[in-house]
Amino acid sequence: MESEIAPVMTTYWEKAEFPFHVVPKLAELRIAGGTIKGYGCPGMSITGSAIATAEVARVDASCSTFILVHSSLAMLTIAMCGSEEQKHKYLPYLAELKAVACWALTEPDYGSDASSLRTTATKVDGGWILDGQKRWIGNSTFADVLVIFARNTSTSQINGYIVRKNAPGLSVSKIENKIGLRMVQNGDILMRRVFVPDEDRLPGVNSFHDTNKVLAISRVMVAWQPIGISMGIYDMCNRYLKERKQFGAPLAAFQINQQKLVQMLGNVQAMILVGWRLCKLYEKGDMTIGQAGLAKSWITLRARETAALGRELLGGNGILADFLVGKAFCDLEPIYTYEGTYDINTLVTAREITGIASFKPVVAQSRL
Amino acid sequence: MESEIAPVMTTYWEKAEFPFHVVPKLAELRIAGGTIKGYGCPGMSITGSAIATAEVARVDASCSTFILVHSSLAMLTIAMCGSEEQKHKYLPYLAELKAVACWALTEPDYGSDASSLRTTATKVDGGWILDGQKRWIGNSTFADVLVIFARNTSTSQINGYIVRKNAPGLSVSKIENKIGLRMVQNGDILMRRVFVPDEDRLPGVNSFHDTNKVLAISRVMVAWQPIGISMGIYDMCNRYLKERKQFGAPLAAFQINQQKLVQMLGNVQAMILVGWRLCKLYEKGDMTIGQAGLAKSWITLRARETAALGRELLGGNGILADFLVGKAFCDLEPIYTYEGTYDINTLVTAREITGIASFKPVVAQSRL
Amino acid sequence: MESEIAPVMTTYWEKAEFPFHVVPKLAELRIAGGTIKGYGCPGMSITGSAIATAEVARVDASCSTFILVHSSLAMLTIAMCGSEEQKHKYLPYLAELKAVACWALTEPDYGSDASSLRTTATKVDGGWILDGQKRWIGNSTFADVLVIFARNTSTSQINGYIVRKNAPGLSVSKIENKIGLRMVQNGDILMRRVFVPDEDRLPGVNSFHDTNKVLAISRVMVAWQPIGISMGIYDMCNRYLKERKQFGAPLAAFQINQQKLVQMLGNVQAMILVGWRLCKLYEKGDMTIGQAGLAKSWITLRARETAALGRELLGGNGILADFLVGKAFCDLEPIYTYEGTYDINTLVTAREITGIASFKPVVAQSRL
Amino acid sequence: MESEIAPVMTTYWEKAEFPFHVVPKLAELRIAGGTIKGYGCPGMSITGSAIATAEVARVDASCSTFILVHSSLAMLTIAMCGSEEQKHKYLPYLAELKAVACWALTEPDYGSDASSLRTTATKVDGGWILDGQKRWIGNSTFADVLVIFARNTSTSQINGYIVRKNAPGLSVSKIENKIGLRMVQNGDILMRRVFVPDEDRLPGVNSFHDTNKVLAISRVMVAWQPIGISMGIYDMCNRYLKERKQFGAPLAAFQINQQKLVQMLGNVQAMILVGWRLCKLYEKGDMTIGQAGLAKSWITLRARETAALGRELLGGNGILADFLVGKAFCDLEPIYTYEGTYDINTLVTAREITGIASFKPVVAQSRL
Repeated sequence: MESEIAPVMTTYWEKAEFPFHVVPKLAELRIAGGTIKGYGCPGMSITGSAIATAEVARVDASCSTFILVHSSLAMLTIAMCGSEEQKHKYLPYLAELKAVACWALTEPDYGSDASSLRTTATKVDGGWILDGQKRWIGNSTFADVLVIFARNTSTSQINGYIVRKNAPGLSVSKIENKIGLRMVQNGDILMRRVFVPDEDRLPGVNSFHDTNKVLAISRVMVAWQPIGISMGIYDMCNRYLKERKQFGAPLAAFQINQQKLVQMLGNVQAMILVGWRLCKLYEKGDMTIGQAGLAKSWITLRARETAALGRELLGGNGILADFLVGKAFCDLEPIYTYEGTYDINTLVTAREITGIASFKPVVAQSRL
Repeated sequence: MESEIAPVMTTYWEKAEFPFHVVPKLAELRIAGGTIKGYGCPGMSITGSAIATAEVARVDASCSTFILVHSSLAMLTIAMCGSEEQKHKYLPYLAELKAVACWALTEPDYGSDASSLRTTATKVDGGWILDGQKRWIGNSTFADVLVIFARNTSTSQINGYIVRKNAPGLSVSKIENKIGLRMVQNGDILMRRVFVPDEDRLPGVNSFHDTNKVLAISRVMVAWQPIGISMGIYDMCNRYLKERKQFGAPLAAFQINQQKLVQMLGNVQAMILVGWRLCKLYEKGDMTIGQAGLAKSWITLRARETAALGRELLGGNGILADFLVGKAFCDLEPIYTYEGTYDINTLVTAREITGIASFKPVVAQSRL
Repeated sequence: MESEIAPVMTTYWEKAEFPFHVVPKLAELRIAGGTIKGYGCPGMSITGSAIATAEVARVDASCSTFILVHSSLAMLTIAMCGSEEQKHKYLPYLAELKAVACWALTEPDYGSDASSLRTTATKVDGGWILDGQKRWIGNSTFADVLVIFARNTSTSQINGYIVRKNAPGLSVSKIENKIGLRMVQNGDILMRRVFVPDEDRLPGVNSFHDTNKVLAISRVMVAWQPIGISMGIYDMCNRYLKERKQFGAPLAAFQINQQKLVQMLGNVQAMILVGWRLCKLYEKGDMTIGQAGLAKSWITLRARETAALGRELLGGNGILADFLVGKAFCDLEPIYTYEGTYDINTLVTAREITGIASFKPVVAQSRL
Repeated sequence: MESEIAPVMTTYWEKAEFPFHVVPKLAELRIAGGTIKGYGCPGMSITGSAIATAEVARVDASCSTFILVHSSLAMLTIAMCGSEEQKHKYLPYLAELKAVACWALTEPDYGSDASSLRTTATKVDGGWILDGQKRWIGNSTFADVLVIFARNTSTSQINGYIVRKNAPGLSVSKIENKIGLRMVQNGDILMRRVFVPDEDRLPGVNSFHDTNKVLAISRVMVAWQPIGISMGIYDMCNRYLKERKQFGAPLAAFQINQQKLVQMLGNVQAMILVGWRLCKLYEKGDMTIGQAGLAKSWITLRARETAALGRELLGGNGILADFLVGKAFCDLEPIYTYEGTYDINTLVTAREITGIASFKPVVAQSRL
């Protein structure tokens, strides 16, 4: 990451383009496929996979998100909900990053309320017809393989499908003008009567509940992204304060700067421990969705604070992507929101603690 | 601003280019020259000029900074420290934005500690030779007129000079990869034996103290930028929450969202009042540098909070420059730092309250 | 306040007793009755009354609350909703603090949801029978005159009554163990068939709406309490930092301390301006309940931050009531909550901004 | 703690008196002496001792501080710096709480800057003469055994002494009017030519460095106090929100309340993990003073936030000591400050990270 990615990332971030030429370098890390065992995948522990996620994010969060979508969402869905044939067919290839995958759940009108999605899957002879729209789908502008969720028009339940890049009726347009994770290519997907053969339906996705099983793991990984980002910010600030001088002294000698740096270090340490504990809970089979939501929301909250402090410590240079911190400050914003916004994750956790769901406000109710 | 600038700003912000074609539109606003009386300048009250600054920033902070540098720094220095001839020569032209000005104080190694600047001005026959570097200078990549501060090698005091665009020995390179105010073109200026004729020395700049008189007014204007930005963010969020639905209800119906919106409104109201009070103090001749520093630092602190809350309220769309809030969130960062960082402004104010300067840490002292 | 109250307040605060002997001193301030014109009342402008509130609170918040309950709640209700006879009978006496009044709306089960109160008023020959409980009622353990709100059993609307100290069936027990405003005597009131003659029913209270008119003014006054408290905290800290030394230097010389002090000053200035603006809106007849809620909630939020910063600045002495700041830190807590908690006031304001009330959660609705 | 202490603590807290009758109950917990091995002490692991500290603080922070001073400061100093005879003489007795100890380092003019203390110890025939003052010394008003630090007038180094309750020349006056830890009796100690026999000098205290070894362990324990307090607050809030209703629904059903509760839980979890990690570092012999300072400061920062959130959740009842949360909110304040204020601990940590000490401001330096 440091020798191959760090030198180019500012340029691509600035242009909001994806650095395709580094994909083979990322492949060499052998982390795609993460916790999946067999099928050419690394089969790491969830802790190992989490640390790998953080280490990538420490250098560049866009690269981390690229891998996370590909590996912890798309590949994992195939591994957990695919047939044996699908696994053999797709996973080895994806693990080597010879093909890139994306994962499409969110829709323009259904973000936080994702389970209400309206894309439809209608059974026809030999396959299914998908109709609808998806939004924010990372990697989708160039992905070879798209895992797409749709509502089965017969059962009204959520089903999952593997769609190929150039499927007729499928079109993807890039979402422009992002303030963070600018290398990541998010797309608006339009599906007009896209045919998917029976063999590409994921047999294990029969309701939104099945999606949640994948999200449980991916949320652990997502929680480690802000940890990695914060580690990177801390490192840079620590170095910068010692090197840069003002008023005849290193910035590290100022009380105000010292206190910010220490608060950042305290946050980083706590975030790592919370993330590590989450992995251990998962590994013991005890992790609940509320615990994952708590970790993700709490960690991103502290990461946002850490990034803002770091941004300040760099003064004017804190607004340049070159110095890593400004870029990281911006990259945190989409992470604060994706895979459950801060607010939604806190309500998910609260539902578990209190036994009361508070997602829907009264006006919604009163209109029914 | 809303009809001419708003539609194009996202595109230019994304490209980090300056929209030269809107300069005539900005000229029509008749706000360049702000509080300057005569010489074709609008001669507004400082309150009027402040509100104009906020209204521009409400729509686009880059445009606001473009004007601020041109008007409240460069033009104001000429108006306050220039000879009668210089005023007649430059101000009318600049007031119509037929030429663009910039203002160069900060140097690579002297940001917060600006008064220690090392660019030199050496007297020679018929003029002066400028040698040194400047950094972060807004508008400098294309400015026709550059107001530049340098240390007189005879007196060791700070002097001011008007330098023309294509002066031999002057070169400017654009600072790339900014996360905020991306339309504003900041430059690194290099001066290698740049000759300035005697007539272009500003007679009223004889020490750093004279620079501070200009900064006192510009700081009032700078304080109104985050006010305008926050007003724009609030307006957008208020509209968005009513229009966007999730879980069957407008986002405006959720307690969590309501509380954020109200906190933002409370901040906006307080910021306006603090800014307004600062103008009144200035108009009465009572404003101190500590009061300006207090207003600028306090307002930017609240603005940063307001922007972060607004960014959250827009969810995924909060990371797109298109929806204004994401862009404004980023634009605040350089403003938090320029014209005195938050930290420096608080220490300036503290010096005034306590009578004790705490800028220099002990290690600096012990090395002298 | 400084010569008569300041010297005794710590002792009474510690004992959680009311300093009855200072009542004549408070009477001499001539502020009871505040904005009421005639009937022996001072007839101040609302701005004048607000500043008086702040100045009392600056020295001692318990005294301020004592007066506020007596004057801006009880007396004001009589002035706004009483008959001409009632006004002549009670107000002059109360304005001189020859008698003390309290004001009873809140009930044990109805705090934030005060309008649902369940104390009943049943019409009988020559008067009314009151039955029910009130909670948190300031001054009630010794008040001579109690303004009490109850639900008319015929109309189901809220009515108001003047009840005398020793009315049969009325009992009051002091609420012990408060962490703040410890001099203020809050009581739990029990009414068992308390008879109130017809002449003591307040003819102007015919619904909860009438109560709100009183609360609109009192909320302006309440908003000025945290302003005064914060002013007192700032003053003390400013003095303390200059006097106390550590590491061979006054505490005022430390960057970390300077920054806290400046943040406090910024808050105080903004709070005053927000409070002042609220008064001006009221005086012009433009103040809405949402604006009062916004000012009260926003000001208490900033005051709480200011008090916490001040508490830190005093180090160990910050936990002693003697040094004013620790006491003020605690006194803010009940104010943060009374006359609408922070949360409730933000939702009141949000309802006004968005047009949507979000007080009741869905579970409430679903049980109806 | 829950059956014996919880029922009486509000009463004693309110009166600011120490509940002497519960000392035998506390003795039965067998936690005094904590990590000390032998001499009748429990010899717990540091982790075990830390958890015991938290569990006591969860119910009552004053009791926790009482034990901490007695055990982790006074007894530990005897165990670490005492002679074999002193250990045999004092520790078994103190472990059973048959006698109570205190520990006196801080002086009126030397709080954060403790190592500059001015109490003197002068060698005389057969012993030492102590002269000076101590401040804030917990348990000192009734302690049987006082561990006191003084500056050896020959060596100018810090020495330690065991002083008995009724030593001639020793007087202690209680510090009144505390806002938190009100059961803990802090005293101002005055020593006028107090004679200490040679056998009561602690042979292992030969410089401030030796004091720091004790403080390293006690700081671990102190860090666990806010953890326990926060656990207690969370438990109470969780229960209260489910039981208390407003607007026809349990408070637990409101989004605003849910989010606060979740933030508190996130904090509690992180604090526990940070505290646990600190113990593990200590047990491995790797803990530095900077790590202890980081943990203590970071944990108290989050605890203060947790307490403020909890205080809000309880509304009016949040200001009563009866409901535990109000009391805990206040009890945190002295803990935020003692054993190194938040600010000092961050600077201690910063010195370790950056290699630069920033305690002394320039004015101090310039006066030397």
